[in-house]
Amino acid sequence: MASQILPLELIDKCIGSRIWVIMKGDREFTGTLLGFDDFVNMVLEDVTEFETTPQGKKKTQLAQTLLNGNNICMLIPGSAGPEDT
Amino acid sequence: MASQILPLELIDKCIGSRIWVIMKGDREFTGTLLGFDDFVNMVLEDVTEFETTPQGKKKTQLAQTLLNGNNICMLIPGSAGPEDT
Amino acid sequence: MASQILPLELIDKCIGSRIWVIMKGDREFTGTLLGFDDFVNMVLEDVTEFETTPQGKKKTQLAQTLLNGNNICMLIPGSAGPEDT
Amino acid sequence: MASQILPLELIDKCIGSRIWVIMKGDREFTGTLLGFDDFVNMVLEDVTEFETTPQGKKKTQLAQTLLNGNNICMLIPGSAGPEDT
Amino acid sequence: MASQILPLELIDKCIGSRIWVIMKGDREFTGTLLGFDDFVNMVLEDVTEFETTPQGKKKTQLAQTLLNGNNICMLIPGSAGPEDT
Amino acid sequence: MASQILPLELIDKCIGSRIWVIMKGDREFTGTLLGFDDFVNMVLEDVTEFETTPQGKKKTQLAQTLLNGNNICMLIPGSAGPEDT
Amino acid sequence: MASQILPLELIDKCIGSRIWVIMKGDREFTGTLLGFDDFVNMVLEDVTEFETTPQGKKKTQLAQTLLNGNNICMLIPGSAGPEDT
Repeated sequence: MASQILPLELIDKCIGSRIWVIMKGDREFTGTLLGFDDFVNMVLEDVTEFETTPQGKKKTQLAQTLLNGNNICMLIPGSAGPEDT
Repeated sequence: MASQILPLELIDKCIGSRIWVIMKGDREFTGTLLGFDDFVNMVLEDVTEFETTPQGKKKTQLAQTLLNGNNICMLIPGSAGPEDT
Repeated sequence: MASQILPLELIDKCIGSRIWVIMKGDREFTGTLLGFDDFVNMVLEDVTEFETTPQGKKKTQLAQTLLNGNNICMLIPGSAGPEDT
Repeated sequence: MASQILPLELIDKCIGSRIWVIMKGDREFTGTLLGFDDFVNMVLEDVTEFETTPQGKKKTQLAQTLLNGNNICMLIPGSAGPEDT
Repeated sequence: MASQILPLELIDKCIGSRIWVIMKGDREFTGTLLGFDDFVNMVLEDVTEFETTPQGKKKTQLAQTLLNGNNICMLIPGSAGPEDT
Repeated sequence: MASQILPLELIDKCIGSRIWVIMKGDREFTGTLLGFDDFVNMVLEDVTEFETTPQGKKKTQLAQTLLNGNNICMLIPGSAGPEDT
Repeated sequence: MASQILPLELIDKCIGSRIWVIMKGDREFTGTLLGFDDFVNMVLEDVTEFETTPQGKKKTQLAQTLLNGNNICMLIPGSAGPEDT
């Protein structure tokens, strides 16, 4: 097998850094990753939630937030989120 | 691995405090966390349920409530819920 | 860990009492809890089913009823159901 | 723990009797329960299927029928089904 | 426990006979059951597929077909399918 | 138990031959089966994808393709796909 | 059993090469595969996301991206994605 970056290694390197998380459905989050477990449940801090509504993206500021790993679709390290692309 | 906050540690620290729980679908709850188990089923007390209806957010007061962990999407500690943001 | 009320403890205390069960989808039930198992399948007695229809809530009286735990979203002990709130 | 009726005990007592089974989605069945397994897959005999269509409830007579336990939402023992309530 | 017919026993008795299989969603199949496994994946032969379309039931003839057990909702032994009821 | 054809046996016999795979949702594939695993993930070669769109079936040619077994609904050996029936 | 290409072997050969990943729902990605795990979670680099919107395909450039294996529907090695077909 070629040398590779394992998914959980990538998440572990993100602790203390900003990440962008896209959930199933219309919710997206950016925040500082404080921790995660084997089910990829994640604890974020200084969180901005982006929700797609018929009136456009709605932003909400949250302090600490726990995300259910089952509902996470993808994760982009080091990103300020949908406004960064 | 960097020092981190594990998701279950965060929930455990919330026992006795107000939390805001967002379920899959349109239901949200705030209440005092009385307990939880490994499936993240949770017991809340002094609960307010917020339901999104075509007529706006509908609030319902409930005493003790048990939430099925499978249906929980995210959790915000120390928050008074959607009216707090 | 702080002293807490475990979810299954709460259900166990409800045996013999009225509970209100909200399923995924539009069905809700009130009844006397006769028993449950580790999958939170539940046996209720003297059951009223509340179903949301375009014509409003429809009530149906049922004797004993078995509910599939996978489909249960939340549970409120000691409540007479949606008409009690 | 209080004395209680376990869900599988209730199903076992129904063998040989009429039951009403409500599936996820719009299908309902009444029939005589011939057997079941740990996944609550069930074998029914002398079955009537009730399907909700835009034209009202449609009834179909079936001989033996096997139901997938994953798709079962609830079960009412000793009932002749939706026409009995 | 009363004497009963176990679900897998019923399927095993169907090997070599015609069965009617109703899948989640709108697909139905009749065919001769050639075999199955513990996940209730099934191999059928001389298969007719019935699909509900806005233009009515559409029939398709297939030779051998393998059905994913997860997607099976119910099974009726010895039946020629929706045209037999 | 009667002599029977097990589902995985059927798939194994298809290696090197054309198969038609119908996924959950609207995607269908034909191709030469190169391999599969216990989760019925499959590797196909010389693949044609058929997608149902409001404008009719859309065909796309692909080289090697890996299909997620969880998303597979049914499989027809030796078939040239929807245009063969 | 005939000699065959196992699905995980195929993914392993793709490390360091461009792949096209199609998720459940409307998201598609192309990128260089950096690694994967047993749940087929994948790490991609130099990623282009293609999202189907009512206004057509929308393209977004991303650096490293982690995809949840549960949400992956299919994978095409060595492809530049939807614009390559």
